[in-house]
Amino acid sequence: MAIQNYREVSAIAQTRRDTKIAAYHNPPEVKESSLPNNLTEYALNSIYYTPEERTIVETEADVILEKIANREWTSLTVTKAFCKASAYAQRLTNCITEVLYDEAHERAQYLDDYLAKHGKTVGPLHGLPISLKDCFIVPPYPASIGMSNWANKATDKEQVIVTILRELGAVFYVKTNTPTAMKMAETINNVWGETRNALHKQLTPGGSSGGEGSLISFKGSPLGVGTDIGGSIRIPAAQGFQYGLKPSVGRFPGYGGRVGVTGQEFLVPVSGPMSRSLKSLQIYTKALLSATPWTRDHKCVPVPWRDNVIQPPGRKLRFGVLVGNNDGSVHCHPPVERALDLTVDKLKAAGHEIIPWTPRHHDVMTRNLGAALSKLGGTAILNDIKPHGEPIFGSMKAYEAAADAEELRVTQIREMIAERDDLQQEYFEYMMTGAPDGQPVDGIIMATAPHAAPRLRGLQADQYIGYTALWNYLDFSVCTFPVLFADKAQDKARDMKSFEAFSDLDARIQADYDADFYHGAPVGLQCVGKRFEEEKVLEMVGVIEQVLKA
Amino acid sequence: MAIQNYREVSAIAQTRRDTKIAAYHNPPEVKESSLPNNLTEYALNSIYYTPEERTIVETEADVILEKIANREWTSLTVTKAFCKASAYAQRLTNCITEVLYDEAHERAQYLDDYLAKHGKTVGPLHGLPISLKDCFIVPPYPASIGMSNWANKATDKEQVIVTILRELGAVFYVKTNTPTAMKMAETINNVWGETRNALHKQLTPGGSSGGEGSLISFKGSPLGVGTDIGGSIRIPAAQGFQYGLKPSVGRFPGYGGRVGVTGQEFLVPVSGPMSRSLKSLQIYTKALLSATPWTRDHKCVPVPWRDNVIQPPGRKLRFGVLVGNNDGSVHCHPPVERALDLTVDKLKAAGHEIIPWTPRHHDVMTRNLGAALSKLGGTAILNDIKPHGEPIFGSMKAYEAAADAEELRVTQIREMIAERDDLQQEYFEYMMTGAPDGQPVDGIIMATAPHAAPRLRGLQADQYIGYTALWNYLDFSVCTFPVLFADKAQDKARDMKSFEAFSDLDARIQADYDADFYHGAPVGLQCVGKRFEEEKVLEMVGVIEQVLKA
Repeated sequence: MAIQNYREVSAIAQTRRDTKIAAYHNPPEVKESSLPNNLTEYALNSIYYTPEERTIVETEADVILEKIANREWTSLTVTKAFCKASAYAQRLTNCITEVLYDEAHERAQYLDDYLAKHGKTVGPLHGLPISLKDCFIVPPYPASIGMSNWANKATDKEQVIVTILRELGAVFYVKTNTPTAMKMAETINNVWGETRNALHKQLTPGGSSGGEGSLISFKGSPLGVGTDIGGSIRIPAAQGFQYGLKPSVGRFPGYGGRVGVTGQEFLVPVSGPMSRSLKSLQIYTKALLSATPWTRDHKCVPVPWRDNVIQPPGRKLRFGVLVGNNDGSVHCHPPVERALDLTVDKLKAAGHEIIPWTPRHHDVMTRNLGAALSKLGGTAILNDIKPHGEPIFGSMKAYEAAADAEELRVTQIREMIAERDDLQQEYFEYMMTGAPDGQPVDGIIMATAPHAAPRLRGLQADQYIGYTALWNYLDFSVCTFPVLFADKAQDKARDMKSFEAFSDLDARIQADYDADFYHGAPVGLQCVGKRFEEEKVLEMVGVIEQVLKA
Repeated sequence: MAIQNYREVSAIAQTRRDTKIAAYHNPPEVKESSLPNNLTEYALNSIYYTPEERTIVETEADVILEKIANREWTSLTVTKAFCKASAYAQRLTNCITEVLYDEAHERAQYLDDYLAKHGKTVGPLHGLPISLKDCFIVPPYPASIGMSNWANKATDKEQVIVTILRELGAVFYVKTNTPTAMKMAETINNVWGETRNALHKQLTPGGSSGGEGSLISFKGSPLGVGTDIGGSIRIPAAQGFQYGLKPSVGRFPGYGGRVGVTGQEFLVPVSGPMSRSLKSLQIYTKALLSATPWTRDHKCVPVPWRDNVIQPPGRKLRFGVLVGNNDGSVHCHPPVERALDLTVDKLKAAGHEIIPWTPRHHDVMTRNLGAALSKLGGTAILNDIKPHGEPIFGSMKAYEAAADAEELRVTQIREMIAERDDLQQEYFEYMMTGAPDGQPVDGIIMATAPHAAPRLRGLQADQYIGYTALWNYLDFSVCTFPVLFADKAQDKARDMKSFEAFSDLDARIQADYDADFYHGAPVGLQCVGKRFEEEKVLEMVGVIEQVLKA
């Protein structure tokens, strides 16, 4: 069989999606010029939703779970509302890939019947619609991750985490868009096209879990599951005004999912929840671990959920914050800096300790991670997509260059591994002794990117993932949290004449800032813990959430 | 500076060792022809030891710890006895590399003073002499792992686990021999020469932790620490009539040790205790985990020691035992088969369940592991030793061949990783469902090698590590246990005319068996659990120990 050109592949995939949506919903066609930047507000205020539907989609996952368990709502009613919302999200942001409405309705009905008959739920996620990034394997649906070679190929072996989440009560109803091979910090590919930010239509939702990010900020999903190998949960979570948890490798089951580069274990992608509510992340994590995933997935570590890891409860925390609000390579845009300052001020006011944190080796680790991603994966990705004639995006030129160069050999790879292991141990010890008294810091608070959500296609020339990627290199646990929205009155552009850039890249990124254009862009930050400190970062973010609300 | 020939390197290293020993002890020269096979018994019955010394060296680690804590014995007295024993072990088996007697005496005195002054121990290993395989870094002592390039090079950064063990109260007094780069199942190298088995002088102690194996069976150490990447703890432990625990990667701290091949993470070596007493292994493991090593070593997982993991306590266990007592590739020698049959019969008699276990993919995994070790490490090892003119041992010809071939490229390595990950998950699921009722088996009992301890240099042509190496490939937890000694009356050679060999290798290995020659060779077996089931395999071996003693 001749290899299909990506345009044919794309047409088949999009028709499949659109047909399945159209069987249930037909959201209004809207003239682009009449749409405001904030598509979420636009949709919620439109006549698309009934009042009950609007109430449901605006309700957070933790409350939805309660209401279903209490039989105040049925899972079917909730599922229908989110299916309907996802159809509109697709129309307005292009965030959906696979449509599972049939199964979702059937599953929700089954769960409602189960609850009615047995008087109890099947598990802690009973009846909750959960959206999945396209990489998760739910047979027979394809898992394209934006690549022509996978886009229309049925899958057959369900991924371990998918089985577990379903057993816990989840209802799967959509899969969501990613960039090609999940390798960009924005969400664009040659199969499904580009996803935009539901909170600001001229901006990207970030990536690679950008379909999730956009769907969740649109209130088209109460909880989604993304994956992260260099920032792919945290960037879209922050740029979608959400909480997003990137765990350490092995905490959650990872076996059997679609990955951009098979057998690449220098940097292992991890899955994690994204939601507008922190409590939902805690419920998801506790539920998943309650299923003892280490009895299902060989690589999962037997570390059960731990309550109240910060002891004594309520004690003041010690946060490292990057000196000068930059990582030594790229300065943040003004709204991001304001978010950092605000968070620091409120934490200090609440009695927490802020420790000036020198970004030790951040530049080396960022460079090493970038080189590893492209040099260990370039050939694999290009071999997959080139036969389909896919054009290569600007953000992926390094992958193309790596594929064209001689492949790395084992001695070079061993050197990369040895250097990484040393840098990991060194930074780990830095965290354990980095406070002025030589004691550990609890966490580090920093930006997830130099920008608030950046312009659509804005990263194709100057993608910079140094704020997130080093934590993958270190395999630390990290959780994002929303802080504020860019405000043209408060977040004036810097004076570029006096701005002292670290590099041309830094200068270009900073020069891109435009207070008017970015007005309304969501800004989130991340809180970093050490390896396997998932519960602690969730607790730390709980503290931060409290002070930000105060 | 000109690169030294290995003979010069060796002379310097051996003179250093011999001088340091001679400063304290001068064990008798013994005519080789007058020595019986069992050197341990020979030494214990000689006039070398005072009665008190003999009592001490014959006491197991758990009892020594009690007696020191109770002030019945001082650490200094105990340490002196083991230093003296190690000097004789060196004379008779050539098992020692670095000599730390000065430090050991000083440390033991310090610990005795501490206990006297404070009325309490510094930790659960207070005062216990612990021998270390040569790969452990105790500055400034070299860590040669049998390689000329490291043999006389001072070290400067203490390894994490060494620091922790010292803090727990350990007294380090000797480091022990390994094969070149720790890559053979016997203990021979061009720097220190060959170590022989203390229980049978014509046999190897196995390898790569063969110096430990020999020293411990000689009663020259109550507890030693080895490492294992393909059987290197289990083979010498079994062939030294000992318990040896190979944990999963990440359970014990591994950072900072000398490894044969830096940056090779396809198969990660792990450290673990070896001892004549199971209780000593439990004490060591519990003590090490009590130090929360995950707060010291980035790659350690936060899984504390777990008591009584077999629930309900005393329940009957379900053990898989390989059908036909072979792994589908190589048959065991008769004494090993007798050890298996005996263990199975006694377990059955005690009410435990024996489940016939088909060795699924054992051949593939063994082949993959062998290829990985040589192809990922050949260049590294040969580049290190070749400049010193070291001859290459027969067991390492695959490494030499790999070094001469074109280096593996990233795509090939990715394929190896992907295949390994699939085989890991498949075998994990097999363990979880492999009982006749589809339920999990608790463990697998099998040989550690086709032979009891094999002949000195007996593996140079036909080294076969298929019984141990797959558990490294799978990263499972395993513990060995002693069963019996080869007996020429009971363990007759098979009739080679009717023997149906799987292969020429199998035929050659079986043909090597000679009931008279192997008489008295120690035979141990291993009990295999899943990943991070260290406590469970220790408990299972406790059950096996009980039935074997009954």
